[in-house]
Amino acid sequence: MKNLLNHIEEITLMGPGPSCVDTSVLNAMATPTLGHLDPFFIQIMDSIKERLQLLLHTENKLTIPVSGTGSAGMETCFVNLIEKGDPVLVLINGVFGMRMQDVATRLGAAVDTLEFEWGTPVTVAAVREKLAEKSYKIVAVVHAETSTGVKNPVPDIGQLLKGSNTLFLVDAVTSFGGMEIRMDDWGIDVLYSGTQKCLSCPPGLAPVSFSDRAVAAVKARKTKVPNWYLDLTMIINYWEGATRAYHHTAPVNMLYGLYQALQLILEEGETSVCQRHLDNHLRLVDGLKALGIDMLVAPDCRLPMLNSVHIPENAEDAKVRSALLREHKIEIGAGLGPLAGKIWRIGLMGHTARPENVDRLLAALKTVL
Amino acid sequence: MKNLLNHIEEITLMGPGPSCVDTSVLNAMATPTLGHLDPFFIQIMDSIKERLQLLLHTENKLTIPVSGTGSAGMETCFVNLIEKGDPVLVLINGVFGMRMQDVATRLGAAVDTLEFEWGTPVTVAAVREKLAEKSYKIVAVVHAETSTGVKNPVPDIGQLLKGSNTLFLVDAVTSFGGMEIRMDDWGIDVLYSGTQKCLSCPPGLAPVSFSDRAVAAVKARKTKVPNWYLDLTMIINYWEGATRAYHHTAPVNMLYGLYQALQLILEEGETSVCQRHLDNHLRLVDGLKALGIDMLVAPDCRLPMLNSVHIPENAEDAKVRSALLREHKIEIGAGLGPLAGKIWRIGLMGHTARPENVDRLLAALKTVL
Repeated sequence: MKNLLNHIEEITLMGPGPSCVDTSVLNAMATPTLGHLDPFFIQIMDSIKERLQLLLHTENKLTIPVSGTGSAGMETCFVNLIEKGDPVLVLINGVFGMRMQDVATRLGAAVDTLEFEWGTPVTVAAVREKLAEKSYKIVAVVHAETSTGVKNPVPDIGQLLKGSNTLFLVDAVTSFGGMEIRMDDWGIDVLYSGTQKCLSCPPGLAPVSFSDRAVAAVKARKTKVPNWYLDLTMIINYWEGATRAYHHTAPVNMLYGLYQALQLILEEGETSVCQRHLDNHLRLVDGLKALGIDMLVAPDCRLPMLNSVHIPENAEDAKVRSALLREHKIEIGAGLGPLAGKIWRIGLMGHTARPENVDRLLAALKTVL
Repeated sequence: MKNLLNHIEEITLMGPGPSCVDTSVLNAMATPTLGHLDPFFIQIMDSIKERLQLLLHTENKLTIPVSGTGSAGMETCFVNLIEKGDPVLVLINGVFGMRMQDVATRLGAAVDTLEFEWGTPVTVAAVREKLAEKSYKIVAVVHAETSTGVKNPVPDIGQLLKGSNTLFLVDAVTSFGGMEIRMDDWGIDVLYSGTQKCLSCPPGLAPVSFSDRAVAAVKARKTKVPNWYLDLTMIINYWEGATRAYHHTAPVNMLYGLYQALQLILEEGETSVCQRHLDNHLRLVDGLKALGIDMLVAPDCRLPMLNSVHIPENAEDAKVRSALLREHKIEIGAGLGPLAGKIWRIGLMGHTARPENVDRLLAALKTVL
């Protein structure tokens, strides 16, 4: 019987995620499966929690990987906090802000939004003005907007909310592992991420972290969390405490992969990892400029790990991406929504962010264009 | 920096799941990650769908693995179908029937239950009587109750519902891959499973299948599915059709594992796989009898893949399980709920169901007891 897996070719993943995965992480996932209640596996779980806390600069006890991809992390944060009619403000400047709005609305929240042009950042002044009008249970923003390549001013928004009762919820799917995140210093109460971006682990897990006051808000709910699978009040009992109560069977081998991915980041050092992302981003921007390709986003709010570039005139979007994939074994990403057909998204996430990859892509683009 | 992964010992997993994973499945998971929109990866996805359809004996187009563990499969089935006040009947004879009740109740369904003693099956007569009183949107039952080792009469319940408007929803987490399931012949409309039982893939995916009339029911909803991550109306557009619309990033390497696990079953042949489960079950039952250990469940409704046994007098539950794990590298499962401390659950699921494992366990039990 034909086995397609024998025909997989290695692709350099330079799109918006998944990113390239180090061989040691792939091998970690091939380690024999342990039971989800095995005492040795519980040691691995505890170590994953500690590593996530370390890299997020948080003392939040509830810092765990949820058993789903990054969007399950988004769902987890909102479904545990929202009860019908809760006022929520979502700051939108791309696809993932829109997704937050959709998720929160489906859960019955009274959602207000502030929208900003795609490719530009959320402005603190606009948020300040909105907060002067009305108070919210949650203010939500995307740190690194994967659809545009824009960095939003998370520390400044956190500063605005300090001293209020509002919970500050941040999407760190694309930023975590590639840019500094100081969860506690920045006043972030609730955060989610994904494994397949700068953590360079395959997709399948969503690290989340809840501050003590966010946990208190979950515990103070009048109604049960309307999602059994993602109910943190039960999941906590599996990830914390002396008796680890079975909730659902944890994705054991995916967790091995995350453990190893975090190991690599800690061994290289968080500062070095962030610097490597920045260095390769600058190398890419320079190289693209030489090819006559311009960046979508202004320099002061560009993400290092997600580079949105204008598709050059005379270049056919799909044809170029397809040629890169087929002839050069390099994947880059298409634009989404209003930017479809107008931009490419070049990822330099985690293990992908290396000079040899930047140079290969630049050479390939030169050939293809 | 210490790496716990280097200290993982291989354990023979003879509990209620996860089960032992073949090396080829582990290696499949270590294959280089492809992008979730890569045309070659989409071929793999299509093949997974076909293989699931084949093994479930269904023509349901919507037959896909959901990006979460088995319980995410349960959540998916209920959250896509239930709107506030929908009448649902849940048949309960163990933990997983109770979980269905909890999931459906949180989603606002009007849930009725029929309860049966743990360790005994659901009786068709009781269901017939209940259905004569009231009609339901959904009747839900667990095929193989992992908490007790009981097989429920799914084909007979399906027969009762034929010709009605009621959707028949079946939990096949533990049965799929170890017992025959004829989804279409048995009149099952909605089914979910997990990868970590008889499919012998690590935990992390939940195959689900919806009949055309179940899909029609989802599409006829008055309100949006209150769970963005598991909304099948959107997920379909990624798994079907010419344009594969991005929804969430699929867990690529987990899907490689599932592909390979299904490959192994198809290569061995479904009939042989089911027979192997049965043969090893009988071998285990005989061996246990010789040790003076009795089965909880009557022979006519015993599951081959999950064997609940009375803990012998004078044996200390936790001490025995711990000695098996530490000294013999064999994991068996504890009892849950009212059966905690009273039974052990011995799994013979998928790759675990081999005579050498049965014999090793019997020898180890003899030593430990």
